[in-house]
Amino acid sequence: MPLFDPTPHVPHGHPAKAFVGEVVPFDVVAFREGHDRIGVHLRLVDPAGDETLHRLTPLADGTDRWRASIAIELKGDWRYRFESFADDFATWAHDAAVKAVAGVDIAVMSALGARLLTTAAKEKDRSAAEKRMLKAAAARLAHPAPDVLHAVAADEDVAAAFAARPHTSLGSQTAWQTLRVERTLAGVGAWYEFFPRSEGAVRRKDGSVKSGTFRTAMKRLPGVAGMGFDVIYLVPIHPIGTTNRKGRNNTLTTEPGDPGSPYAIGSADGGHDGIHPELGTEKDFRAFVRAAGKEGLEVALDLALQASPDHPWVAAHPEWFTTLPDGTIAYAENPPKKYQDIYPLNFDNDPVGIYAEMRRVVMHWVAQGVKIFRVDNPHTKPLAFWEWLIAEVRDEDPDVIFLAEAFTRPAVMRALAAIGFQQSYSYFTWRNTKAELEEFLTSVSHETSDYMRPNLFVNTHDILTEYLQFGGRAAYRIRACIAATAAPIWGVYAGYELIENVARPGSEENIDNEKYEYKFRDWAGSEERGESLAPLLRRLNAIRDAHPALRQLRNLSVHWSDDDAVLVYSKHLDGAFTATGESDTLIIVANVDPHSVRETTVHLDTRIWGVEPGDDYEVEDLLSGAIWTWNDHNYVRLDAFAEPVHILRVKERS
Amino acid sequence: MPLFDPTPHVPHGHPAKAFVGEVVPFDVVAFREGHDRIGVHLRLVDPAGDETLHRLTPLADGTDRWRASIAIELKGDWRYRFESFADDFATWAHDAAVKAVAGVDIAVMSALGARLLTTAAKEKDRSAAEKRMLKAAAARLAHPAPDVLHAVAADEDVAAAFAARPHTSLGSQTAWQTLRVERTLAGVGAWYEFFPRSEGAVRRKDGSVKSGTFRTAMKRLPGVAGMGFDVIYLVPIHPIGTTNRKGRNNTLTTEPGDPGSPYAIGSADGGHDGIHPELGTEKDFRAFVRAAGKEGLEVALDLALQASPDHPWVAAHPEWFTTLPDGTIAYAENPPKKYQDIYPLNFDNDPVGIYAEMRRVVMHWVAQGVKIFRVDNPHTKPLAFWEWLIAEVRDEDPDVIFLAEAFTRPAVMRALAAIGFQQSYSYFTWRNTKAELEEFLTSVSHETSDYMRPNLFVNTHDILTEYLQFGGRAAYRIRACIAATAAPIWGVYAGYELIENVARPGSEENIDNEKYEYKFRDWAGSEERGESLAPLLRRLNAIRDAHPALRQLRNLSVHWSDDDAVLVYSKHLDGAFTATGESDTLIIVANVDPHSVRETTVHLDTRIWGVEPGDDYEVEDLLSGAIWTWNDHNYVRLDAFAEPVHILRVKERS
Repeated sequence: MPLFDPTPHVPHGHPAKAFVGEVVPFDVVAFREGHDRIGVHLRLVDPAGDETLHRLTPLADGTDRWRASIAIELKGDWRYRFESFADDFATWAHDAAVKAVAGVDIAVMSALGARLLTTAAKEKDRSAAEKRMLKAAAARLAHPAPDVLHAVAADEDVAAAFAARPHTSLGSQTAWQTLRVERTLAGVGAWYEFFPRSEGAVRRKDGSVKSGTFRTAMKRLPGVAGMGFDVIYLVPIHPIGTTNRKGRNNTLTTEPGDPGSPYAIGSADGGHDGIHPELGTEKDFRAFVRAAGKEGLEVALDLALQASPDHPWVAAHPEWFTTLPDGTIAYAENPPKKYQDIYPLNFDNDPVGIYAEMRRVVMHWVAQGVKIFRVDNPHTKPLAFWEWLIAEVRDEDPDVIFLAEAFTRPAVMRALAAIGFQQSYSYFTWRNTKAELEEFLTSVSHETSDYMRPNLFVNTHDILTEYLQFGGRAAYRIRACIAATAAPIWGVYAGYELIENVARPGSEENIDNEKYEYKFRDWAGSEERGESLAPLLRRLNAIRDAHPALRQLRNLSVHWSDDDAVLVYSKHLDGAFTATGESDTLIIVANVDPHSVRETTVHLDTRIWGVEPGDDYEVEDLLSGAIWTWNDHNYVRLDAFAEPVHILRVKERS
Repeated sequence: MPLFDPTPHVPHGHPAKAFVGEVVPFDVVAFREGHDRIGVHLRLVDPAGDETLHRLTPLADGTDRWRASIAIELKGDWRYRFESFADDFATWAHDAAVKAVAGVDIAVMSALGARLLTTAAKEKDRSAAEKRMLKAAAARLAHPAPDVLHAVAADEDVAAAFAARPHTSLGSQTAWQTLRVERTLAGVGAWYEFFPRSEGAVRRKDGSVKSGTFRTAMKRLPGVAGMGFDVIYLVPIHPIGTTNRKGRNNTLTTEPGDPGSPYAIGSADGGHDGIHPELGTEKDFRAFVRAAGKEGLEVALDLALQASPDHPWVAAHPEWFTTLPDGTIAYAENPPKKYQDIYPLNFDNDPVGIYAEMRRVVMHWVAQGVKIFRVDNPHTKPLAFWEWLIAEVRDEDPDVIFLAEAFTRPAVMRALAAIGFQQSYSYFTWRNTKAELEEFLTSVSHETSDYMRPNLFVNTHDILTEYLQFGGRAAYRIRACIAATAAPIWGVYAGYELIENVARPGSEENIDNEKYEYKFRDWAGSEERGESLAPLLRRLNAIRDAHPALRQLRNLSVHWSDDDAVLVYSKHLDGAFTATGESDTLIIVANVDPHSVRETTVHLDTRIWGVEPGDDYEVEDLLSGAIWTWNDHNYVRLDAFAEPVHILRVKERS
C-alpha cells in the first residue's frame, strides 16, 4: 500500500524543524488500488520516548493527501512515521449503507458485517462494554433486513469502536524521520536592532562625540520592551580596527572622531571575545544583559567572522588568512572592489584551528548570557562549517539560536536553513507589490516552512528600499502591519519609528549610515509630537501577543481581491490549539500602494474559519475598532494616508 | 561544496527513465561560499561500463543550477553522478582580467597566475605541446604589466587547456544514480487503436453480422501504416464470456448476434492465453503480427486482468476471486453498481499463484511476437504486483513495453509510472483550453518527464470528450495537431479520421460503442469524398518523422500570446543532436477555440533557438507551405474553419 511524500520533510536528509507551541501539519500521500477504504496513522515518539498514535483525515478529493495537525509542546528530537492500512470496517460500512438503500445483497452484506463485528468483539484490548456492544450489533445482523443493515452500518457507537481500534488488514509504513523541536523564540518573536553606542551618545560643544555605553544604552531598554519587542539585537560590540578605518558614508578616509564600522572587528584592545572600550567592560555588558532580561528582552549578538588588519588573530594566526605572493594578506574584495578595512578568513587553510576558535568565541558569549546570534554573511563561509558549529553549540546548549543574514540566491539561503540555522533573513524587504507578496508569503508559509523560518525585518542598517524611500509614512505603516502579521518572527531596526527614509543618493541604505557614525534620536519628543510610529509598533506587538494564530508560520492563506494593490491573507488557528478553546482567525487586508485610496471587493474562502460561503459573520478591526458584518464577498476602502490596512478579527458566533 | 537536487530523479528511489535517442538534461544545483568560481562535472557510466566525463554549464543567473544535455544512444542501465570542484583557473582568470583593466594588483595577480600555469604545465596527462604552451604563458607573466596580465587571462589556448583538464582544488560528489534506457519505441511512437473484428465484418442479408478476422483485418494494415503510424493496438482478442454478456450501448440484455465486450474475457474456448474463435487461430494471429511487421507496424495487445464468469480460471482457481458468505463469487462493483459480466481477481488471496499466472500469460504473448501491452485499469490492481511483473518481464526481454491505462488521481498515475510502466495515458483528452494545455504540457514535459512518458491519445473507444462532441471538424484537426507535436507519443482510435463525434446521450463515449458491436467504416470512400482526416494524420506523422525535435519529450517551451484561445509552444533540438548538424525548431500556434477566428500577437523567447530578440528569421508553415519573416513579436490569424493551427519550422539562416 503506497505511502509517498511524507512531510514535514527537509531536502538532503536534515531533520525538519518545529518550535514549542507550533501546530505542525503531518501530511502523507496514501492510496490503494480499487475502491476499498483505507486509514492512515501518524506514530509520534516524543523526546522522552513516549509514543502516540494519531488518525489522519483526507484532504481535498483527488489529492490522496492525508493530514493530522499536532501541537508540539516538548523540546528535543521527535521521531515520526506514517502507517496506512486497509480499513475493513469502513469499507463494509460504506458498501452496506449504499446497498441497504438500493436493496441489494442484504443477506451477503449482513453476513459479512456479522463476521467483522464478531471478530472485533473478540479483540483483547477492547473493554467489556465495547465487546458487548459489538456482539449485540453482530446479533442484529443475524436476521437480514435493509433497515437493520443500514442502522448497523451507520451506528455511531460501532463506528467509534472501530475508529479507536481499527479492524485492519494489510498495512505499510514510511521510514522514521526526525522533527527537531526548538524553544519558542526560535520560531516566534519581535526583534529590535540597535547600535548601543548611539544610545546616550553626547555631542560635545566642540562637535566631537562622547560614545554611548552599555550603561547609557540600558536606558533605552524599557522603551523597546514597552513597544512589545522580545529580542534586542546589538551590532558587533567588539573593539574596532583603526587601519584603513572607513569614514562617514563609507568613505575611505576618516575624520578625527569617526567611530568606524563595528564590522571591522579587532584591535589591540581585543578581538571577537573582546568589548570595545568605549562601550564599557565585560561587567557592564553582563549588566546590560541582566537589565534586558528584567524587561523581558533577550539579547542577540552579531557574529561577523572577519577581522580588521589590527585583529589579534592576524599576528597570532596569519595562516588563517590568504597570503599573497608578495607576502601581504589579501583584503576582502569583489574584484576590482576592495574592502581594505577587512581581512576575510580562509577556512580552507586551517579548518581545525579556525573551527575550534569560532566555537570558543560563541561559547564565550553563551557564558556571558547570550543565546541568540545574528550571523553576518554566513554564505561567504563554508556551509559545512556552519553545520558543524551549530551542531557543536547545540550539544552544549540546545537553546542557542542562530539567525542567518544571507541575502543571496535562493538555493544558498535554503541550504543554510536546511543545515541548521534556526532563523533566516528573507527577501521580504524587496517584495512590495501585491503579486510579489502573494508569492513570497505562500512560499515561506508552505514551501519552505519545514526547515526555514523567515525573520521579516522591515529595514536594517544596510537596507532602505525604494519602497520606503519614496512611500512616505504610509509605506512604513503598511510594511510594519504586514511583517508583524504575516509571519511569527519580524524585526525593526531602530529609527524605523522615526521614518528615517532619506537614502545616500543612488544607494539602498540610509544617508549617514549609522555603521560609520553616531545617531542622535529624540524618541520621546517624536512620540509626543505624534510623529513616531512607536504607538503602531506597540499595537502590532500587542495584537501578536493576543492572537496565537499570528504566532504560527504554516497557517497563512492568500485570498483574492479585485484590486491589483489590495493584498488579502488570513491566519487561522483551530480552537483545538488555543488556550481558550475558541478558534483564532485574523484577516489582513492591505493597500500596498502607499500613494492612493483603493476601493474594491475582497473574496474570501470562509470555510477556512468554518463559515459556509454566503453566511454572515462579524469582524472587528483591531487597529480602528470598527465592527462590520462580513460574508465571503466584502467591500473595502483603504486610504493609504489614513487607514492603509485592516487587521480584522473574526468574532466567534455565540 | 554543496550539490543538491540532481536530476533526472524519480521519487522513492526508482531508476529514472530515458529512451535510445533521447536528449537528457542532467541538472544539479551547485555553489560554494564567496565569489570563487566552481566547475561541475557529470560522470556517466554506460551499460558496458565505459565512463565519460561531461562539463556542465550554468543556467540562468541566481538559480545555481548547472546542466549538461547528453544524447543517450545505448540501451540498458546507466549510472551517473555529479562532481563539483573549485575552479582555480577560472577564479584567477576572472579576477586577473578585471584587475588588469582596473590597474590594481598587477604584480600579485601575475605571480599567482604564473604559479598556477607552472603547476598545470607539470601535470602528467597533458601533451608536450600543451605543456610548452602553458610554460610559455607562465613566462610571459614574469614581467608584470596590465596588458600582459589581461592577455594571458583571456588567452583562448590557455582557457581550452584548463577546460579540458581543470586545475581544481577541493571537490565533492553526489551519490550514484541509475538511468534506465529503453528502446526508442518506449518513448516515441504514433499509435493506432482498432477492433480487429470490425475490419472485414460483413452484414448479411438477414441483418446478422459475420465477424472480421485476423485475416480480413490484415487488409487494413497498409492503410494504417500509410498514415505513418508505428504501433497497431488491438483491444482484447481472447474468447468472450456469454454469462451476463452486455448488449449494445452497455445494456444488460443481449440480442442474438451481439458480439459482447472483448473486456469480458474468458469462455469455454479459453482465457487470457486464448484467441476468440471468430477472430481465427493462433496461427492467424502470428500471421497478423508478421503482416504488421512487414508494414513497419508493431502489434500492441490489451492486458485486461479480469475474468468473465465463464473464464477457465473460475473453475480451476476459485481462490483467485472473492467468495461471499453465500458461496457466490463477487462481481466487479462500485456499490451499488454491479458489473455482472466480470469477476475481479483478488490479488490478496493467492498472490503467488496469481502473480505466476500473469507472468505466464504475458510471456505467452511475448513468445507470439508481441512486445507491447496496453494495460487496462492497472490502478485497480496492487502497485507491488505491477512492479514485480514489469521487472520479471524485463529480465526476460528488456524490449517489452507496458502502457498504463489509468485514468485516476495524479498520485496514483505517477506512482504507476515511477514503478516501471514505460508509458502512461494522461489527462490530455480533458485539457482543452489554452490555460489547461499550458499547464498540462509544462507538467508532462518538465515536472514528471524523468519517469512518466505520456501517450497523448486524442480519443479512445471509451472517451469522446465534449470538446470533440461539439467542436466539429475543427476540434478534430486542432487536437490531432497538438497531440502529434506536443509529445513524442500520441495515439488515435479508429474512426477519428471519420470524425465520429456522436455521443451516447449524457455520456462521454460514442453512441453505439464498438465495445458492444461491429462497426462498418468506409475508409477509402470517405477519403475520396474529401471528408476523412487521414491526409492530416498522414501529414502530421510525416512531419514527426522529418523533425527530430518532435521526437523528444523534455524540450517543450510555452510562449505567450495576447489571445486567451491561442496556444503557443515550441520544440527545439540543438544541432549537436541532429543527424544534419542543423538545429531543429518548430513553433506551434493553435487556436483552441474550434468555433472562431482569432487574430492576435504571439510573443516568443527566440533565444531558445539562438535568435536575439528583435532579429528576423524565416518560418515555413509545414501544413500550408506559407513562408513568413518573423521576429519575437508576430501577428497571427487562425481561422478554426480553415486553418486552425500553424506548425512552423524555423529555417536556419545561411
